[in-house]
Amino acid sequence: MAEIEIGLGKTARRGFGLDELTIVPSRRTRDAELVDLAWELQGFRFELPVLAAPCDSVVSPHNAAAFDDMGGVAVLDLEGLWTRYADATPLLAEIAELSDETASARLQEIYKQPVDPDLIVERVRAIRETGAVSAGAVTPHRIEELLPKVLESELDLLLIRSTVLSAEHVTKDGEALNLKTFIRQLDIPVLAGSCTSYQAALHLMRTGAAGVLVGVGTGVGATTSDTFGVGVPLATAIADARAARMRHLDETGVYVHIIADGGMDTGGDVAKALACGADAVMLGAPLAGTTDAPGQGCHWTPVGARADVPHSERIRIPARGTQREVLVGPSDSADGRLDLMGALRAAMASSGYETLKEFQKAELMIIPEVTR
Amino acid sequence: MAEIEIGLGKTARRGFGLDELTIVPSRRTRDAELVDLAWELQGFRFELPVLAAPCDSVVSPHNAAAFDDMGGVAVLDLEGLWTRYADATPLLAEIAELSDETASARLQEIYKQPVDPDLIVERVRAIRETGAVSAGAVTPHRIEELLPKVLESELDLLLIRSTVLSAEHVTKDGEALNLKTFIRQLDIPVLAGSCTSYQAALHLMRTGAAGVLVGVGTGVGATTSDTFGVGVPLATAIADARAARMRHLDETGVYVHIIADGGMDTGGDVAKALACGADAVMLGAPLAGTTDAPGQGCHWTPVGARADVPHSERIRIPARGTQREVLVGPSDSADGRLDLMGALRAAMASSGYETLKEFQKAELMIIPEVTR
Amino acid sequence: MAEIEIGLGKTARRGFGLDELTIVPSRRTRDAELVDLAWELQGFRFELPVLAAPCDSVVSPHNAAAFDDMGGVAVLDLEGLWTRYADATPLLAEIAELSDETASARLQEIYKQPVDPDLIVERVRAIRETGAVSAGAVTPHRIEELLPKVLESELDLLLIRSTVLSAEHVTKDGEALNLKTFIRQLDIPVLAGSCTSYQAALHLMRTGAAGVLVGVGTGVGATTSDTFGVGVPLATAIADARAARMRHLDETGVYVHIIADGGMDTGGDVAKALACGADAVMLGAPLAGTTDAPGQGCHWTPVGARADVPHSERIRIPARGTQREVLVGPSDSADGRLDLMGALRAAMASSGYETLKEFQKAELMIIPEVTR
Amino acid sequence: MAEIEIGLGKTARRGFGLDELTIVPSRRTRDAELVDLAWELQGFRFELPVLAAPCDSVVSPHNAAAFDDMGGVAVLDLEGLWTRYADATPLLAEIAELSDETASARLQEIYKQPVDPDLIVERVRAIRETGAVSAGAVTPHRIEELLPKVLESELDLLLIRSTVLSAEHVTKDGEALNLKTFIRQLDIPVLAGSCTSYQAALHLMRTGAAGVLVGVGTGVGATTSDTFGVGVPLATAIADARAARMRHLDETGVYVHIIADGGMDTGGDVAKALACGADAVMLGAPLAGTTDAPGQGCHWTPVGARADVPHSERIRIPARGTQREVLVGPSDSADGRLDLMGALRAAMASSGYETLKEFQKAELMIIPEVTR
Repeated sequence: MAEIEIGLGKTARRGFGLDELTIVPSRRTRDAELVDLAWELQGFRFELPVLAAPCDSVVSPHNAAAFDDMGGVAVLDLEGLWTRYADATPLLAEIAELSDETASARLQEIYKQPVDPDLIVERVRAIRETGAVSAGAVTPHRIEELLPKVLESELDLLLIRSTVLSAEHVTKDGEALNLKTFIRQLDIPVLAGSCTSYQAALHLMRTGAAGVLVGVGTGVGATTSDTFGVGVPLATAIADARAARMRHLDETGVYVHIIADGGMDTGGDVAKALACGADAVMLGAPLAGTTDAPGQGCHWTPVGARADVPHSERIRIPARGTQREVLVGPSDSADGRLDLMGALRAAMASSGYETLKEFQKAELMIIPEVTR
Repeated sequence: MAEIEIGLGKTARRGFGLDELTIVPSRRTRDAELVDLAWELQGFRFELPVLAAPCDSVVSPHNAAAFDDMGGVAVLDLEGLWTRYADATPLLAEIAELSDETASARLQEIYKQPVDPDLIVERVRAIRETGAVSAGAVTPHRIEELLPKVLESELDLLLIRSTVLSAEHVTKDGEALNLKTFIRQLDIPVLAGSCTSYQAALHLMRTGAAGVLVGVGTGVGATTSDTFGVGVPLATAIADARAARMRHLDETGVYVHIIADGGMDTGGDVAKALACGADAVMLGAPLAGTTDAPGQGCHWTPVGARADVPHSERIRIPARGTQREVLVGPSDSADGRLDLMGALRAAMASSGYETLKEFQKAELMIIPEVTR
Repeated sequence: MAEIEIGLGKTARRGFGLDELTIVPSRRTRDAELVDLAWELQGFRFELPVLAAPCDSVVSPHNAAAFDDMGGVAVLDLEGLWTRYADATPLLAEIAELSDETASARLQEIYKQPVDPDLIVERVRAIRETGAVSAGAVTPHRIEELLPKVLESELDLLLIRSTVLSAEHVTKDGEALNLKTFIRQLDIPVLAGSCTSYQAALHLMRTGAAGVLVGVGTGVGATTSDTFGVGVPLATAIADARAARMRHLDETGVYVHIIADGGMDTGGDVAKALACGADAVMLGAPLAGTTDAPGQGCHWTPVGARADVPHSERIRIPARGTQREVLVGPSDSADGRLDLMGALRAAMASSGYETLKEFQKAELMIIPEVTR
Repeated sequence: MAEIEIGLGKTARRGFGLDELTIVPSRRTRDAELVDLAWELQGFRFELPVLAAPCDSVVSPHNAAAFDDMGGVAVLDLEGLWTRYADATPLLAEIAELSDETASARLQEIYKQPVDPDLIVERVRAIRETGAVSAGAVTPHRIEELLPKVLESELDLLLIRSTVLSAEHVTKDGEALNLKTFIRQLDIPVLAGSCTSYQAALHLMRTGAAGVLVGVGTGVGATTSDTFGVGVPLATAIADARAARMRHLDETGVYVHIIADGGMDTGGDVAKALACGADAVMLGAPLAGTTDAPGQGCHWTPVGARADVPHSERIRIPARGTQREVLVGPSDSADGRLDLMGALRAAMASSGYETLKEFQKAELMIIPEVTR
């Protein structure tokens, strides 16, 4: 990897964002109907390579089935409003109506209500009863405590997620969760993240996770880069994780999936994340900015930059349509912010690829940012 | 070609846009009157290296003669309003008056009216009767069906055009048009595109096309890059096609012309496209943004990003003068958005070139974008 | 160091700003409580690696104790209002109320009042009586004249500071202060700067200074780069000074501290400055833009670009909280402009470093500026 | 020179603008009073390295003496209003009052009045009578015709100037002015330009010119780059001309001066142009944007992009002070747009250089543009 000298004897790599890339068409175009967007993860087959992010503004027990129906999978925040309150509906309404000045403080207050582990069981079962794949997210700090109820709920897919997740975490009292032993002993498939570097991804892969989330500080509402200067642009983070996936596959024969996490807004963004090497994408803000999102026009993420500020700022996102229109259309517009999967299909067809695995080898070009 | 590593083991080329380039004057300036802008294509001689793009907002059967008179050539969309309706005039007026909110849906509706093949004959003959060279564009999906009427119309120059055109297209039923056999059997000169890569351009050249259109997602109203992340900046696309032209010439002795398609706005843009290696340019938006364009201040393109969204968004373009003033002046302004051919002539004179072929060898310099 | 040719035979290095960098997390995260921000300078131990800049808008004899209490150190401008006037309070109020049109002229006028050396003794003693470490700044032009009173005041830490400070200054009459002999004979620790290059930093280190300030033209209100085109982006300036520190340490066994001076606004900026190699940071504008700053919403710096324009422009800075909130919180926001030290702690924890010395070796990545 | 591949087999150099550079201080600062800004050109000694550009909006027969008094030299446009009209005063007033819509057309009209050669003699003598050095500019197209009167006027310094000037110009009838023989036979020192490339500069130097103007399309009001895509960023243009100067000096022993022409606005810009290798700068817009400029708040240049649009657009420039304040102060501001020579002096002092020749060797650094 080319190192650039930023001062005498001090070097840095150049990282690339998705906005700096385009996909170069190959010499054979295809019909869009030929394109297959399906994706398999440890026995689950999803028709679309997309997860709805575990944010109370995006996923509720009530809309998970709709995502399943479309071919994606919705991930419920198992430490969110729905496991803290018997009925989150009035709180979602209240949050949507808060002024920008009062939102931040009130948000922290609302989330001070403790998680009721029994509600985890209740919410996951509600999703399972619809016939949908049930997926839920827990932070690494709480996973050991909440695990019994998670298992009791018969959750299908578990996300262990914090802003920056490493396979080994050092604590003051030395009693940190060792993901390497913890995940390996679980029976359900685990997605773990987010991580951004080759080393961090490789070590997360070695925990036995079925997939790793890649992306730090790149999403809307995520503030890690400004707040504390930490992060890697998404295209480079995905490509580095792809290199880790190849090494891990070579060493173990196990293919660990890469989920691009945050920072994607249009169909083009999704296409480029996949062409960089991701197997699927996890979308938050684009699915919060819809007429039927639980957030009702507002978005916030449970992955706060710091322990004492657990949630991101609440931001308003103009609605671009329904969650269904955002994912699979229909759209009479061509700006790429509706029908993301249709746009992905068109991208693959016009650049000449039929499957996601082939598309990961698409030729990329770096473009001047302002003309993107 | 220099590859840049965007992540461990993943590389990409850097692509350049016209905005990033300038032309470096050679050591001998010339009088502008010495400059010869003429261009020949399979027996046709055009005094100006410019085609008016096949958009209903730019070209009608009624203004084609004026372009011919100036020395350029207008390309009529043979699947546009004029071949769908006996009189397109009221529809053009209606489109111009639609609100931004309703334009997109109504546009799709208007173009649902089927093409009447007999109108192709009628429109082309109307142009031929003025004495002008007649040029028309058809999409690859319809060309086989419409060909008999196109031939009956005695069209002079045929464009086969879609957003991303490849010599070989893969379809579900395997019955795709094989351009390699199709074009070679035609008697009229064919321009085919658009394409953006060396391989795609080379294979299009091998179809027997007289010229290839180069450019994807670079024009005003084109949304391919945002929508699905596919595209190559125009300067690099032209330069790559130029390399394909050299190889094809070496292999076959046949010189295939390169038409830069879209994404040019000023005389400087046109000059730089030619200096990158184009033989001529095809202009849409600059000719739509005129007081006498059929679009009456609005522009839309027939090359939609996807089959189910066949047309681009309708956008409003402030008029900068008449179509004639845009192309050949007169202009009392020096901002490069009027008299594009005069500006091209001045560019060639001041940088020291007399013919377009010489100008293709002009020295280029990469500049910081913001100071362009 | 890679040289880039800007013209035939003329080369330049590429300099990097903090905005172009991010910190790449290592593979082990840590608890924030494990992070140690302490820093030692010649017997003084500071719990936070931060100095409040010697600006009348930032530091007064009355708030120095509060900075000491937080763990930082406030540097009083010993040629500022408090040593020119018996009571600076009404002048600070007047400056805050000046219109933008009149501020510049009136500022120059106010500072025409001569420094009263006895007030130096009075102000420093007032700070010492609070139990705080006393630090004060003098310009190189006045240090010889003011030294007796500085020594009499029993100041703990002396800054010698001008926009561009070199170890050797050439004057018309040849009687310039030789910092190499001057600093070595002093008993109190000296911080000297600002400087920006490897050579300038190395020579300042050889004067016997305990630390060097690094940064020219990078701060808010600093105008050196626009005004006379001189300056080095902060990340490169720090990294070059770090190389000088290594050489000086190798030659002499003495570790000279590097203080990043100006141009930092968020916790991320501070983290990146330290990761580039700084031992501590000196903050002006972020501490002036507070509800309780002496400048009352206005900021100006005593380091003017030129002798006849000794002070920078007075600018207004929207308050983001109290000085304490800016440095150590609490903050219910996550935008990085409050609780800079908490953000630094989080940056180190999430990227896996426990001490500032380790953090100086953090992996850096260059990012496209517009996506910072 | 590093060539970058913009497409397969097509390369371009990267050109740099002044905005992308800063000057790195050397290790010894100096007193500003030590700095010597004097500059000598074939027997003339100027205390300041600055020429006022030959624009009617900048120089008149009435203010030339003031420039001389400050130490610079004003160049009168010998094909401007003052040689076309007996009294240009009412026309300057009229131009200043024209609306933006009508200005361009009226400007062309006013300049249709033929040049009265006798007025050349009258205007130059008026300047000479004040004791000032008299300098005047003529276009290459008219120089042969106007030369007798120019010589009769006993002009001290002659500029031959067009947008892009080459030593050899090719015309339709083959009767172009050969600068190589023409300039060599003149007795008065000639400055010729503008040029932008190594080859063009070298050949202009070989004409016997005392100096060459460097810069195309970089000034305010100049539109060459947008209009026809021709131009080289100023820093690279100067550095290339500097290489030509070294070769010419080596071949002939004659030092030809380089005058950076246009595109500089602040003291920093001037300093950087000189540090890139210029011997002096020619300023237009900064001297037009003054309270006492002949243009009365408006600026236009006689070097139009094309023969049929001889003058640039008329633009309004907010006044920043008097012409004297812009050049030599006084200034109570530090934004670099007043007292350009004071800022230059400060730049040289703080970066450690005493003479312009030494300053041409100053270390340069490339910076990210947006943080300039």
